[in-house]
Amino acid sequence: MILKFIRDSVHGDLNLNELEVELIDSPQIQRLRRIKQLGFTYLVYPGANHSRFEHSIGTMYLASRLADNLLLDDHQKSIVRICAILHDSGHGPFSHVSEGFMRTHEELTSELIKKSQLRDILSENFDLKEILETIKGEGSLGQIISGELDVDRMDYLLRDSYYTGVAYGVIDVERLIYNMELGEHLMIKRKGVQAAESMLLARYFMYPSVYQHHTTRIINAMFRRCLKKLFDGGVVNPNLIYHYDDVDVIAAARSQEGYVHDMMQRMDNRDLFKTVYSIEIDESNDPATLFKMNESDKRKIELEISEDLNVQEDNIILDIPEYPSFDEMSTIVSLNGSKVELGNISMLVDALKGARFKHADVCIYLPEDDADKASKFPFKDYIPL
Amino acid sequence: MILKFIRDSVHGDLNLNELEVELIDSPQIQRLRRIKQLGFTYLVYPGANHSRFEHSIGTMYLASRLADNLLLDDHQKSIVRICAILHDSGHGPFSHVSEGFMRTHEELTSELIKKSQLRDILSENFDLKEILETIKGEGSLGQIISGELDVDRMDYLLRDSYYTGVAYGVIDVERLIYNMELGEHLMIKRKGVQAAESMLLARYFMYPSVYQHHTTRIINAMFRRCLKKLFDGGVVNPNLIYHYDDVDVIAAARSQEGYVHDMMQRMDNRDLFKTVYSIEIDESNDPATLFKMNESDKRKIELEISEDLNVQEDNIILDIPEYPSFDEMSTIVSLNGSKVELGNISMLVDALKGARFKHADVCIYLPEDDADKASKFPFKDYIPL
Amino acid sequence: MILKFIRDSVHGDLNLNELEVELIDSPQIQRLRRIKQLGFTYLVYPGANHSRFEHSIGTMYLASRLADNLLLDDHQKSIVRICAILHDSGHGPFSHVSEGFMRTHEELTSELIKKSQLRDILSENFDLKEILETIKGEGSLGQIISGELDVDRMDYLLRDSYYTGVAYGVIDVERLIYNMELGEHLMIKRKGVQAAESMLLARYFMYPSVYQHHTTRIINAMFRRCLKKLFDGGVVNPNLIYHYDDVDVIAAARSQEGYVHDMMQRMDNRDLFKTVYSIEIDESNDPATLFKMNESDKRKIELEISEDLNVQEDNIILDIPEYPSFDEMSTIVSLNGSKVELGNISMLVDALKGARFKHADVCIYLPEDDADKASKFPFKDYIPL
Amino acid sequence: MILKFIRDSVHGDLNLNELEVELIDSPQIQRLRRIKQLGFTYLVYPGANHSRFEHSIGTMYLASRLADNLLLDDHQKSIVRICAILHDSGHGPFSHVSEGFMRTHEELTSELIKKSQLRDILSENFDLKEILETIKGEGSLGQIISGELDVDRMDYLLRDSYYTGVAYGVIDVERLIYNMELGEHLMIKRKGVQAAESMLLARYFMYPSVYQHHTTRIINAMFRRCLKKLFDGGVVNPNLIYHYDDVDVIAAARSQEGYVHDMMQRMDNRDLFKTVYSIEIDESNDPATLFKMNESDKRKIELEISEDLNVQEDNIILDIPEYPSFDEMSTIVSLNGSKVELGNISMLVDALKGARFKHADVCIYLPEDDADKASKFPFKDYIPL
Repeated sequence: MILKFIRDSVHGDLNLNELEVELIDSPQIQRLRRIKQLGFTYLVYPGANHSRFEHSIGTMYLASRLADNLLLDDHQKSIVRICAILHDSGHGPFSHVSEGFMRTHEELTSELIKKSQLRDILSENFDLKEILETIKGEGSLGQIISGELDVDRMDYLLRDSYYTGVAYGVIDVERLIYNMELGEHLMIKRKGVQAAESMLLARYFMYPSVYQHHTTRIINAMFRRCLKKLFDGGVVNPNLIYHYDDVDVIAAARSQEGYVHDMMQRMDNRDLFKTVYSIEIDESNDPATLFKMNESDKRKIELEISEDLNVQEDNIILDIPEYPSFDEMSTIVSLNGSKVELGNISMLVDALKGARFKHADVCIYLPEDDADKASKFPFKDYIPL
Repeated sequence: MILKFIRDSVHGDLNLNELEVELIDSPQIQRLRRIKQLGFTYLVYPGANHSRFEHSIGTMYLASRLADNLLLDDHQKSIVRICAILHDSGHGPFSHVSEGFMRTHEELTSELIKKSQLRDILSENFDLKEILETIKGEGSLGQIISGELDVDRMDYLLRDSYYTGVAYGVIDVERLIYNMELGEHLMIKRKGVQAAESMLLARYFMYPSVYQHHTTRIINAMFRRCLKKLFDGGVVNPNLIYHYDDVDVIAAARSQEGYVHDMMQRMDNRDLFKTVYSIEIDESNDPATLFKMNESDKRKIELEISEDLNVQEDNIILDIPEYPSFDEMSTIVSLNGSKVELGNISMLVDALKGARFKHADVCIYLPEDDADKASKFPFKDYIPL
Repeated sequence: MILKFIRDSVHGDLNLNELEVELIDSPQIQRLRRIKQLGFTYLVYPGANHSRFEHSIGTMYLASRLADNLLLDDHQKSIVRICAILHDSGHGPFSHVSEGFMRTHEELTSELIKKSQLRDILSENFDLKEILETIKGEGSLGQIISGELDVDRMDYLLRDSYYTGVAYGVIDVERLIYNMELGEHLMIKRKGVQAAESMLLARYFMYPSVYQHHTTRIINAMFRRCLKKLFDGGVVNPNLIYHYDDVDVIAAARSQEGYVHDMMQRMDNRDLFKTVYSIEIDESNDPATLFKMNESDKRKIELEISEDLNVQEDNIILDIPEYPSFDEMSTIVSLNGSKVELGNISMLVDALKGARFKHADVCIYLPEDDADKASKFPFKDYIPL
Repeated sequence: MILKFIRDSVHGDLNLNELEVELIDSPQIQRLRRIKQLGFTYLVYPGANHSRFEHSIGTMYLASRLADNLLLDDHQKSIVRICAILHDSGHGPFSHVSEGFMRTHEELTSELIKKSQLRDILSENFDLKEILETIKGEGSLGQIISGELDVDRMDYLLRDSYYTGVAYGVIDVERLIYNMELGEHLMIKRKGVQAAESMLLARYFMYPSVYQHHTTRIINAMFRRCLKKLFDGGVVNPNLIYHYDDVDVIAAARSQEGYVHDMMQRMDNRDLFKTVYSIEIDESNDPATLFKMNESDKRKIELEISEDLNVQEDNIILDIPEYPSFDEMSTIVSLNGSKVELGNISMLVDALKGARFKHADVCIYLPEDDADKASKFPFKDYIPL
């Protein structure tokens, strides 16, 4: 029984039943309205102000469409819709930007659900354990929410394209959904291989244009530095990060004195650090070592450089992107009864495997005032490559 | 000389010259990135998170297109582009929501420009007085920025439609721009009458669907009550409202205790006041008296009701919408040499004149807990109609 | 059971069951692929090449959506889907252009269904009489297919906008469909009044821009003159017009000698007649007389003028548009239990009633070579106004 | 001086100066309105009715945008605009479908221009030789019209996506155009590599979905067989194919008796041949031999099979697709002063080189009635692979 409609700018009118309305009206899901899906990307693409909230209900819509196509029963369909609504509820402010030195948003989502009123709302109608597992990508339905070709990705590619104005993420969702089947695993049919390829490519193209755009990377790195200070100073509690929204963290930073305050002001005024060094990564120069470095490894390098270069230690940022995984490669394709991995039958996907490091260069940022000093500095010697 | 491109989700790539980049990079214009164009409308249309910043550069783009069409010279074109960038720089947080008990955003924009670094950037290349007048809609170019059929309106109708997903505002900008001419006045040509009519209708349809959507009105009224308290308590300075962004005001409200804090929490959790009374306005029941009431007149009525109804005085909100003006009616149409007002030759525009009160009903809101008490209360007797 | 998908450029993937595929695969429905929805409008809007076929399946899609919303049962839903597919099957080449001096396309559709294999396909599963009545707009479901606010109109407004690039027809179909209810009559709910108004306005704006665009009117008038000759000469049989497609008629005209051949060549080369006289109609100058004139009345006037003006009698065309009916005015609105007509509660709709004659001016066309002669000719005296 | 606007559904209002209007109003360019851009693709994607005419003016628009970006002077810009309008004027009915057993459309375009009134219109303002060379892709401006990354391809990818509803062709034209530079060669800048990659991929994905869709291939093969018969029978003159439009050829086919008439009827009724054999091509099985076969080589194989399989000789069609060239691989990229080929620096483009044969399988078609006979027939032995 439909209780309510919400107008989504990407998918049109989305309907909700009574339980879904109750979930969405909880403070835990309402908080997602105040968390930007793409963090500080709006400083590069001014339209990118969209929220985790819209993404969550958009994902619910696609989960529902996929459920219909897979001929799931009403209870199963209800589960995937609800898991889609909940799947990002543990996200911290500015989404992924706040990840890295705290637990993953998947763990946080699990904890939030268990500790909040969401638990009670869910327990009346569902097996809580099944819900939590599905959100994590486990069990028979988990792949729909969190897998190689999940509805989460479909929605964010479409949505991020819509709001940034970058068309690369416009994928053919209809063809994709229509060509999926659910066995032990969520699989793509023979006729859907091309649609799956095109979705991978959409992600690949969105990386340098949007997700890893150079300016965005600088801003995110600056913000993460602030956030770390707020954590260390006890101003923001990383263990309860799912209680904060974007406003909380910006306001906290502004209320500080000194470094954090100044950094926040820089971000507000778009007076950004500059890239003084960057090095391209590829499989030849052993990137594994790099990607394995933890926060303190990186900090050590920063301190060494700051000393030798004679800049204030917090003004130097070493930015190593996340390991560019492409798990879509292991999407299962159902080919006349047998099952093969997408990466094994698609030359394009195979090419992406090699090309993915291309936009993951390691960078060092400094304030503009310090940038001159850096022009001849041998940064290379400090990076273990 | 183009220095930079910005990708706008509505109009595509927008180019900027050196001076424009300097203006846009000022803290005064960067602040607009952190002010939502439609205030709290995102609580009704989850996609409506767009900022005054995108609207400002989108308006610049349309101003430029119109300048080209009117065959303005380079200096004039430069003026209208710059005025478009600046035209909303004095807006307070959450845009129009913060208007009403302070100076208009037009006055504030003027003051901000005169008192900030914007003055210096502009003075090198322009006559500051001409810029300020143009922004106000005065002088030969003023109508382009602020007139009956200005580029400001064109952009916000398109943009608000894009982000809310409500198609009513999708106007035919190309036809409109192509059919304008500039004499003493900015006029519409005979062939553009229909495009002008359709723009009026777009506004008319967007009112109840978006701008005066009932839920939005409740939220705005709740927020204005908070803002008034913050002003009165000296927490936020209304005279410098152009220094604050959305984050500042929400953070200020959250940091309060008691009423303001609770109201902010209600808004965060979408736990909204309910409409307990509404009365439709039309020209027969003398709306003039109503629309003339100032803040203290309204407050007096609220206090009377709160006493007789026995509810806490701050928990009752009397909401009288702005007078629904439709100045597009006086758009000048150039008809074979003579000039007539659009309202005089268009039956549709004439019909709108009567219909405009339709969505401007006067409402009274109370918290849900108090709503029961109100079911039989004679609110009508308190409203001077 | 879904058998097949068709990708529609307007609505996305449309699914079809076995019976629907059988219908669509019949030569009668395939013929619609070769009939342009907007006749010769592609000579004004180069993108307007869309066919009756796409419109028919698009209408089926909307009928299905509306059926779901009205909670119709499977059999009823099946009926409206099938009637939507069939509703235009009797159309002659170039759609409405070929109407006027033969039976209406509704009558022809009825006859075609009864006389063709469509009858057999339908009879197995449905009551043929019910299908024919529904297509005509009769019975409980008829209003969905052919009524004041039917899915036919919704689809053609959206589709004609998409292909012409004129945005006026972009209506809010979701809101419209969601706010309809089916009693004895298909009605609009209180909350849907605005969506209904906006659909009327969409039609109103599309008239002068597209449907009655001046150049299109000239081309249509030229083509109708040719078609009349082809009918009179026995080259094309008006009683079996539903056997012809656009190609047949153009090829027939090209194969003639003399006048028809020359006219066709003019149309191919866009060497069009010119308007030498036009007179605006409004309610004051008794348009009823005009709109009541039949083909021979009009021909009589043409002959008189041709004699006095000394031009070849077939080179003068008197073009009187169809009576601009707006039956949407009588849409039933369900208001708190009672029923009122939309025209009675909407000031906008009432204004349209008056404004509709505005774009229905009476025109006289001549070849460019004859146009000089006409400059001082007293055409007015020949028109009974 | 702008003389006229044409509304394009893809790019919006396109302006034309006097000379361009004169060109477009010629019968040679008007004919393109009656030639479908994608031949019989409308039998698979019902919206694909768009014409060469819209594509030609859309290409003009993009040529103009690129000219502005490359800072070409007014005369050069005028040349590329005009060449874009003309570049497809020699196309035969149903576009590429009629190619193969006659001269290429490039040669025909050249001849048509030289022999028609187009010559006179052009000669007044331009060096005819320069125009003809530019259309062929020669000279300094030729690459804009016909090169590895020309505006022709940009327009058709966007346009074919728009009308088929298949989103794969939605490329980022703004980024592409902005990142091109003109030296001796039209080159892509470093920052445009990704946009160029994405355009290649767009083409790659459009191939199996649209351009080489299996059903389209069958229809095209059927039509080509008819056309060959019409040529051989002297009904249609291949040397003057640029005088015919789609209507002429269909009407000619319908007017025949026997085989051609029956085939045309099959196409009208979508009663298509079936694929009874297909063999995938890759670089391992020496496709060069295959792609080198001419019409009579293929015909020989068909005759052998028809004899051994005992089917009427014209009812068997051996369909070998065109050699899947990807000349975009040789796009020149300007990298810090030096020039490299795109194929050498892009792993994706390199992968495409291998994958391109994937959708170029060799097929044999028969009428459905004969398909049974073919189930165990050793077609493989007849194909030289």
